[in-house]
Amino acid sequence: MTVTTPRGFRAAGVAAGLKASGAPDVAVVVNDGPDAGVAGVFTTNRVKAAPVLWTEQVLRAGGVRVVVLNSGGANACTGPAGFQDTHATAEHTAAELTSTSGREFGAGEVAVCSTGLIGERLPMDKLLPGVGAAIRGLAADGGDAAAEAIMTTDTRPKTTVISGAGWTVGGMAKGAGMLAPGMATMLCVLTTDAVAEPETLDAALRAATRVTFDRVDSDGCMSTNDTVLLLASGASGTTPSAAELTAAVTAACHDLAQQLLADAEGATKEVAIEVVGAAGEDDAVEVGRAVARNNLVKTALFGNDPNWGRILAAVGTTAAAFDPDAIDVAVNGIWVCRSGAAAEDRSKVDLTGRDVTIRIDLHAGAAEATVWTNDLSHAYVHENSAYST
Amino acid sequence: MTVTTPRGFRAAGVAAGLKASGAPDVAVVVNDGPDAGVAGVFTTNRVKAAPVLWTEQVLRAGGVRVVVLNSGGANACTGPAGFQDTHATAEHTAAELTSTSGREFGAGEVAVCSTGLIGERLPMDKLLPGVGAAIRGLAADGGDAAAEAIMTTDTRPKTTVISGAGWTVGGMAKGAGMLAPGMATMLCVLTTDAVAEPETLDAALRAATRVTFDRVDSDGCMSTNDTVLLLASGASGTTPSAAELTAAVTAACHDLAQQLLADAEGATKEVAIEVVGAAGEDDAVEVGRAVARNNLVKTALFGNDPNWGRILAAVGTTAAAFDPDAIDVAVNGIWVCRSGAAAEDRSKVDLTGRDVTIRIDLHAGAAEATVWTNDLSHAYVHENSAYST
Repeated sequence: MTVTTPRGFRAAGVAAGLKASGAPDVAVVVNDGPDAGVAGVFTTNRVKAAPVLWTEQVLRAGGVRVVVLNSGGANACTGPAGFQDTHATAEHTAAELTSTSGREFGAGEVAVCSTGLIGERLPMDKLLPGVGAAIRGLAADGGDAAAEAIMTTDTRPKTTVISGAGWTVGGMAKGAGMLAPGMATMLCVLTTDAVAEPETLDAALRAATRVTFDRVDSDGCMSTNDTVLLLASGASGTTPSAAELTAAVTAACHDLAQQLLADAEGATKEVAIEVVGAAGEDDAVEVGRAVARNNLVKTALFGNDPNWGRILAAVGTTAAAFDPDAIDVAVNGIWVCRSGAAAEDRSKVDLTGRDVTIRIDLHAGAAEATVWTNDLSHAYVHENSAYST
Repeated sequence: MTVTTPRGFRAAGVAAGLKASGAPDVAVVVNDGPDAGVAGVFTTNRVKAAPVLWTEQVLRAGGVRVVVLNSGGANACTGPAGFQDTHATAEHTAAELTSTSGREFGAGEVAVCSTGLIGERLPMDKLLPGVGAAIRGLAADGGDAAAEAIMTTDTRPKTTVISGAGWTVGGMAKGAGMLAPGMATMLCVLTTDAVAEPETLDAALRAATRVTFDRVDSDGCMSTNDTVLLLASGASGTTPSAAELTAAVTAACHDLAQQLLADAEGATKEVAIEVVGAAGEDDAVEVGRAVARNNLVKTALFGNDPNWGRILAAVGTTAAAFDPDAIDVAVNGIWVCRSGAAAEDRSKVDLTGRDVTIRIDLHAGAAEATVWTNDLSHAYVHENSAYST
């Protein structure tokens, strides 16, 4: 139940030897049409990996029918040689597809995504044979293998399917750290067999990521490689309305974003920060993010401590409209702070579970937004202090 | 060698029972003149503790001759009742000083500083008798006792003395967590026996904090209580130039800021992030802060891992002027990144010591700035997940 659930798609995942563990590390997704619709959203980090630069470029031309993805190396901060590696990967993918399918493929139809350690070249002598093996293994039920091959520190693959009336959206994602706005750090490929104009696809994807992936802020760190692609085959012959398509893509992104949050490196809590009573949605998001990124709030949550004073201190760093003496804060339903001061007994707050909801009422308007984050745990420090060594 | 080293000051520190440990928790510093010069810099957090609101107010009127400080409670997010507690503390301090000294003191001459847990009222039945005891214990050599009484999670008191030609600047500070710009979270009282106009004092203090405390970003968390006060007695009879005074106050602030950094909660590294080649000083500070606040960089440093890719990813989140393909990064003198890609062998970097220098050359201009931070360790998580429980 993943990228190959919608009709018109094949996928594969293989082990090419990029990962020292020998686990699968190369995936290919092919859109067999009849349409070749595509939309993409990318990291807003100004230090962009070579595959992001490449894929942004080919998407501008349109007509992308193939996505090739690798884990085991981000190909970021690798200079012109790294970009050449991405280009060569796309060329090789197109050539292999042409020779195995009899159809003509060009490098400009191939999007490339990479994930792993920043700053090292990819071992092309392993990657290119792996791409060939994946292409030879392309199958209509290959989506699960592809989802497994893009994992890095993920403990499990993330896939989703959302059904429309006669059409479907499928998806896969990876990501467990560097999850922050301007894209939760991750790769995500969504597929649909709906018939949709390029503008409709693009609008649906942007609307979806804005309220899902862009509002996951696990550790405040923005990646160089984030990419979300949406491919449309049109194979269902059904044309949903723009609203229907947007709703389905949003549901798929929401499902995958919550799976990312649940699998975040070392996290013991999944935290929803609901900001209500804001003067505008931007204010609500800014406040949510400031709380999500505050290490003292995050460590308190790890310690099952409903330390609302740290929450107020974080809110106070923002430019959002509010009166410090009018803020209410509830932690898991207990209003521990009313009008900026202590209210219900904090000992009533039960933080022993994995799910935490922090509700902040700014009493400054009617807008609201939810930002999702994790706690800051010993395991996060352990995992991220040992990642590249 | 602290706030009582300059002539014209007395101080004291006593245990009033605010801290469960029974350690000293109330300090008083009195300026015996002849001048009553004062300048102050405060947290830029919009959620300000009651003593900050009070002290900002009395400083606007000028003529502050007394600072009363307590640890064991921040009196932040305590509403109008908390502000009344601060007001009552100032009134009580003035009354006690009047009765013991024979001189007339008013509450408007008393600055108040508090530090400790946010969101709880201070136990006034303990605080006010403690203030009385401190005033009765005021002594010309009481600076060290005062410095000890303002400690919270600090493992040691922080004091400094900078000598001019016939005049001196002394200081004390506390702070070990919530150290972030818009003031490294802390209380700091500086004293001088120099003769100086209020405008000169104010300009000297602002110039000093801008390049010292404001550039310490230990954990990205901004406090509700940060206060830096500079009192001038004029007792030396010497009037230094504005430049001399600024240099001495800056040196005192730098010394205390480095002591804060060295004592930051759970830190195993003191990290100087030197940003050079920036188009402007604001760009350099923005880049330095972005790196200082990046949890993936901080955990990598804890793991002795010169992960320059994470440094570039952090730089890429800023709006500073730079070309991603032109950035150089050195870690402890080894240029592991040149022109945005791998350069010298990262295994040459020795990160086993406590001091770390990250030098980032943006190649975009001639401006530079240094931001100081710490690593993110297991001990930080431990200490901050258990603080209020």
